[in-house]
Amino acid sequence: MPEQPRSSLDPIFQPKAVAIIGASATATKIGGRPIAFLQTAEFEGSIYPVNPNYADVQGLPAFPTVSAIGAPVDLAIVAVPAAQVLASLEDAARAGVKASIIFSSGFAEVGPQGEALQRSITQLSHASGMRIIGPNCLGVMSGADRLYATFSPIISDGAAPHGHISIVSQSGAFGAYCYAMARERGLGVCRWVTTGNEADVDIGECLDWLVGDPVTKVVVMYMEGCRDGDKLVRALKKAQAARKPVIIVKVGRTEVGAAAAASHTAALAGADHVYDAVFRQFGAFRAQSIEEAFDLAYAITVAGLPRGPRLGMLTVSGGAGVLMADVAAELGLEVPEMPQAAQARIRDRIAFAGTRNPVDITGQSGSDPELMPLAYELMLGDARYDSLVVFLSAAGLSRGAPGLVGMAARMRAKYPDRIIVMSSLFPPHLRAELDAAGVIAFEDPNRAVRTLAALTWIGERHASPAPSHAADRVVVIPAQAMTEPEAFDLLRAQGLPMASCRLAKTPDEAAAAADAFGYPVVLKIVSPDIQHKTEIGGVILGLTSAAAVREGYATLRRNVATRRPDAQVQGVMVAPQLSGGVECILGVQRDPVFGPVVLVGLGGVFAEAMRDVVLRLAPVDVAQARQMISELKGHTILAGWRGSAAADVEALAQALAALSDVAVAAGDQIESIDINPVLVRPAGEGVVALDALVIARRTPSSLQDEPPKAPSPAVEHV
Amino acid sequence: MPEQPRSSLDPIFQPKAVAIIGASATATKIGGRPIAFLQTAEFEGSIYPVNPNYADVQGLPAFPTVSAIGAPVDLAIVAVPAAQVLASLEDAARAGVKASIIFSSGFAEVGPQGEALQRSITQLSHASGMRIIGPNCLGVMSGADRLYATFSPIISDGAAPHGHISIVSQSGAFGAYCYAMARERGLGVCRWVTTGNEADVDIGECLDWLVGDPVTKVVVMYMEGCRDGDKLVRALKKAQAARKPVIIVKVGRTEVGAAAAASHTAALAGADHVYDAVFRQFGAFRAQSIEEAFDLAYAITVAGLPRGPRLGMLTVSGGAGVLMADVAAELGLEVPEMPQAAQARIRDRIAFAGTRNPVDITGQSGSDPELMPLAYELMLGDARYDSLVVFLSAAGLSRGAPGLVGMAARMRAKYPDRIIVMSSLFPPHLRAELDAAGVIAFEDPNRAVRTLAALTWIGERHASPAPSHAADRVVVIPAQAMTEPEAFDLLRAQGLPMASCRLAKTPDEAAAAADAFGYPVVLKIVSPDIQHKTEIGGVILGLTSAAAVREGYATLRRNVATRRPDAQVQGVMVAPQLSGGVECILGVQRDPVFGPVVLVGLGGVFAEAMRDVVLRLAPVDVAQARQMISELKGHTILAGWRGSAAADVEALAQALAALSDVAVAAGDQIESIDINPVLVRPAGEGVVALDALVIARRTPSSLQDEPPKAPSPAVEHV
Repeated sequence: MPEQPRSSLDPIFQPKAVAIIGASATATKIGGRPIAFLQTAEFEGSIYPVNPNYADVQGLPAFPTVSAIGAPVDLAIVAVPAAQVLASLEDAARAGVKASIIFSSGFAEVGPQGEALQRSITQLSHASGMRIIGPNCLGVMSGADRLYATFSPIISDGAAPHGHISIVSQSGAFGAYCYAMARERGLGVCRWVTTGNEADVDIGECLDWLVGDPVTKVVVMYMEGCRDGDKLVRALKKAQAARKPVIIVKVGRTEVGAAAAASHTAALAGADHVYDAVFRQFGAFRAQSIEEAFDLAYAITVAGLPRGPRLGMLTVSGGAGVLMADVAAELGLEVPEMPQAAQARIRDRIAFAGTRNPVDITGQSGSDPELMPLAYELMLGDARYDSLVVFLSAAGLSRGAPGLVGMAARMRAKYPDRIIVMSSLFPPHLRAELDAAGVIAFEDPNRAVRTLAALTWIGERHASPAPSHAADRVVVIPAQAMTEPEAFDLLRAQGLPMASCRLAKTPDEAAAAADAFGYPVVLKIVSPDIQHKTEIGGVILGLTSAAAVREGYATLRRNVATRRPDAQVQGVMVAPQLSGGVECILGVQRDPVFGPVVLVGLGGVFAEAMRDVVLRLAPVDVAQARQMISELKGHTILAGWRGSAAADVEALAQALAALSDVAVAAGDQIESIDINPVLVRPAGEGVVALDALVIARRTPSSLQDEPPKAPSPAVEHV
Repeated sequence: MPEQPRSSLDPIFQPKAVAIIGASATATKIGGRPIAFLQTAEFEGSIYPVNPNYADVQGLPAFPTVSAIGAPVDLAIVAVPAAQVLASLEDAARAGVKASIIFSSGFAEVGPQGEALQRSITQLSHASGMRIIGPNCLGVMSGADRLYATFSPIISDGAAPHGHISIVSQSGAFGAYCYAMARERGLGVCRWVTTGNEADVDIGECLDWLVGDPVTKVVVMYMEGCRDGDKLVRALKKAQAARKPVIIVKVGRTEVGAAAAASHTAALAGADHVYDAVFRQFGAFRAQSIEEAFDLAYAITVAGLPRGPRLGMLTVSGGAGVLMADVAAELGLEVPEMPQAAQARIRDRIAFAGTRNPVDITGQSGSDPELMPLAYELMLGDARYDSLVVFLSAAGLSRGAPGLVGMAARMRAKYPDRIIVMSSLFPPHLRAELDAAGVIAFEDPNRAVRTLAALTWIGERHASPAPSHAADRVVVIPAQAMTEPEAFDLLRAQGLPMASCRLAKTPDEAAAAADAFGYPVVLKIVSPDIQHKTEIGGVILGLTSAAAVREGYATLRRNVATRRPDAQVQGVMVAPQLSGGVECILGVQRDPVFGPVVLVGLGGVFAEAMRDVVLRLAPVDVAQARQMISELKGHTILAGWRGSAAADVEALAQALAALSDVAVAAGDQIESIDINPVLVRPAGEGVVALDALVIARRTPSSLQDEPPKAPSPAVEHV
């Protein structure tokens, strides 16, 4: 009985028998390359060239079809023109092939005809259970299993060393470039997969497999977008739980970039800032460049992740110490001062050293061989820093360099739970020694600290993964447009701190409500047909007497009758006009890829223009809501700025978590909820929501006419 | 007659005769190294070891004193213990030595005694005219003149290639590290100077010399702070006028960094954000890391600066195109679309190429050799991009690489005023070919675009240097504290748009003034002894009748009598209470290093918490003021945000320029002026200043008691 695969992607990364459909006798042609690569790499499984025109190909017996092979095939590589792909796949599926990789292009990337062809491939995959990578991809390399199922010429120049970095890329050329960069830097790679048009298997599923792969220690992922947010989130959660770092280069950050992406990929992209929020939420690090991604992958495979955020800096140059301190402060690393006794011990040896942190042992370290080991011991042993960055100027090239490298290696061995980064210039053989000892090396001190900050961030996110949090109730959202009083009622019933309000149907009712609330009050027209009330004169502020309210009621009705005679009017909403406190925004928006996203932001025109908002996928509990608020650029204002009292952040966090519960309980019924503003009162005095807009999700048929709306805090409000 | 030096620093960088005081026979000792280095480098001038204990040193005749040499000496290197330095210098000065470099440490960096010793050196220098580098420095290397006046062992491992980059560093260890980094990257260096404690010559003066040096094409400068802002500004202006790029790594950006710097350097540092403003103002680029600094120095020496901001992106990978477009957009480069006809010509060859910009010619470029030259021609010839970045994936390592390099070289030769950057992995010999052809190469596409953006920024600043602008009048600031009405009068007289106000000395006068202005009005207590009026109940807002004004007048007097019985009260200021428009802040602050700095910022609690201000050294003309306003993060709000009218930016710029004129005309009399808020009305309606605080400069004697105040927009206001 054959071994049961743990995943349907096993045959892609670890096949025992591979067929090449469209096999070529020429080792440099697309259908010839994988055969040559597999033979050169001494692939241990069977290789079956498939080509009806040859009896043998590159020294191997060839078969006219996959069915004709007569032996089990795990993986078929398809290298025939687009028009022949479907027939080849059907043959492969009939023969019981478990997975295919389609090199061929001419599918969704070339327009409607290609899209139709690609849909047939997807259907075949779903119907047969045969998993498919591509089409329009450069294939898969799985060096740990000697599998080179690719036609990328990059492998002709040599394979990357065996190691623990896996690369998954939606772009073939970019993937090839990443592979070459890793190889040129001497970084060890284990798996490499380019997903192309993703007719079946997508990057989320590839990531999921790589997270489960014991050889992979870190995944570098290049993506433009994804269609299945659930799959991606599942894989990211799994990575976080397994403490397996994921480094993502996601392009399309800017509008210019997104426009370029749209012309390049057929992927349906969610809004970029939602991706950003998802990555943060599940502890995947978003690198700004592929260079940064490999800096991290290198550091993680050499040394792992720091146990905490406390950074020590040891330097032979005061200037470099200041430079590193600047970067550490900017990136939010903790740089606690050395214990006084430890500082005194360094001053005993060198009176004018910097001893707080950075510890600057100056050029003196050259003439006093005890100085540096003492500093290491005091910083790792006494100060117990979680990470230590050591700037050695150019000493890594000096005659004393082997001694310095040996010292770092001994310290790492003695304190194996601490990360040590050396910043200096080193020759290759010393770099290799540092690698072997688990010590990271970067030439540039800025880059050293930057990398440590990223490792620390990942380590912290892995230490406290987001709890899963199921909704225990259901909220029903009416399909028709909700008026503001209805929205207030709905949200109040779910525990949100809505301001008082009353729906008045006559001037007298309005005046009575105002008398009950006390003055001033605000009046707003209530109509399911009018969402932007201000524009048609549907709002009156600052009314200070019953007479003014009666007059205001009449004015509102008149304005609507004139400007929106079609609108059905239910009456006028009366509410006390509140002020005081910090204005914030709470919201929910359904993302087309990831589902409901909650957001919190600071209010006011400047904060909105600066887009000071933090997003997360729902659900969000109170602790996570607190975390979100702390990530606002203007959180200092809530904390009490320029002598003003601290705002009730706790009540705001509770309101945000309650809104998240509504989003989860309402599921797919909601397009968006905006609560803007929420007044956050001084600590202990709570929050109060002054305005709410709930928009039910449009039906799928109406969705086809309009593109899905991107989340935005800048919705029109009274 | 000896040749007249063009600068008193010539003998430091280009001496014809060098004496080494404290010369050692041991080539590895501090006093022995420069002799060994000079001989190895075949220094063409005379070398005179000075040491009373030897007849010859390292094969050269030695002298007991400099006076005993009996021949002209341009430069003396001083390598004796601190206690002997002054006597050695006196001897050298007597002998007519033109300049000295002091290696010795034990001066200002070690405390008060050392400071006193250093002051004697400064006095000697000023009295004798002998220029001095150091003490406590690693010296000077001037490879273009075969001068290695240093004891840094870095040179033992080999000199950097001769080239056109000069390095000036306040830190020896950091300077050595920079030198090694340049050498390891194969970058050509011409001058290298470490300034140490700067008893005489400082970095500003070194920069000035290097800007005048015909061999130097770009200066990389490491600094912690400077004492003489005028010298630095003069040198930066000279560099800008000469179009010689200056790249600065200035540490102490953050408070943590500044604290580390304070423990390391004796330099009196101006506020870091003032340095930042000065660098921007005079077109010096502030690099975040030494790696970035050398990226720029490399690119500038290879290719020069772009003629404009229009960037074209050519790629064989759509993904890399998007990545580059993201970076370009974030950094504000212009990425105009290709002309339609040019797009059509590319589509003719490859139907599914991206053609707008980035131009994505896909992997197809491998099989169609005409495709890439066509794209080059269309992008440089038709679209006339100023810079072109070409992403080649890993093709720089392929067999086709020499052809790709040759193509780039031909294009650069054909379009010599355009910058071409290749992003790929290249072997060293092809990198050298690209260097020779004036084509830049970076592995990482992000880094390629980032470098281009910096080059573009420098090029733009060089194209439009700040005009010099002299004050043509003098403003006298009274030494005693000014009241707000006095401040209003002073500023109004200088053309600033102050709100109307009147000083009332009785309740009736106040009521009459209010009647004249119209309601509501605001009342503020007027006393030279009270600057923070709100705290003592010295301000009342929103008074809407004469009776309320009379009552308010009494309340203010009562509040002051109770809470500040000592204060001399001149009356009450009455002003109309204005609102509407965007709240901004204007200010002047005297920086201890650079003198008067003007600032503009957005008002409101969030904008102030975000520190949304832009600074510049005065004088600032209207065009520069406009530029400053456009650099505000929240400038979109002034431009008319969310449907509101555009604000009167022109009037704001005029007010800022007028304030700059006041700052210049008042010179050293002013400590600070704060105008907060200024209401910026819709375009055409002007601006009006509601509040002003003018603080005269404290006398030098009081300055010694308190540290000079750092500029800050967060001054207390009504």
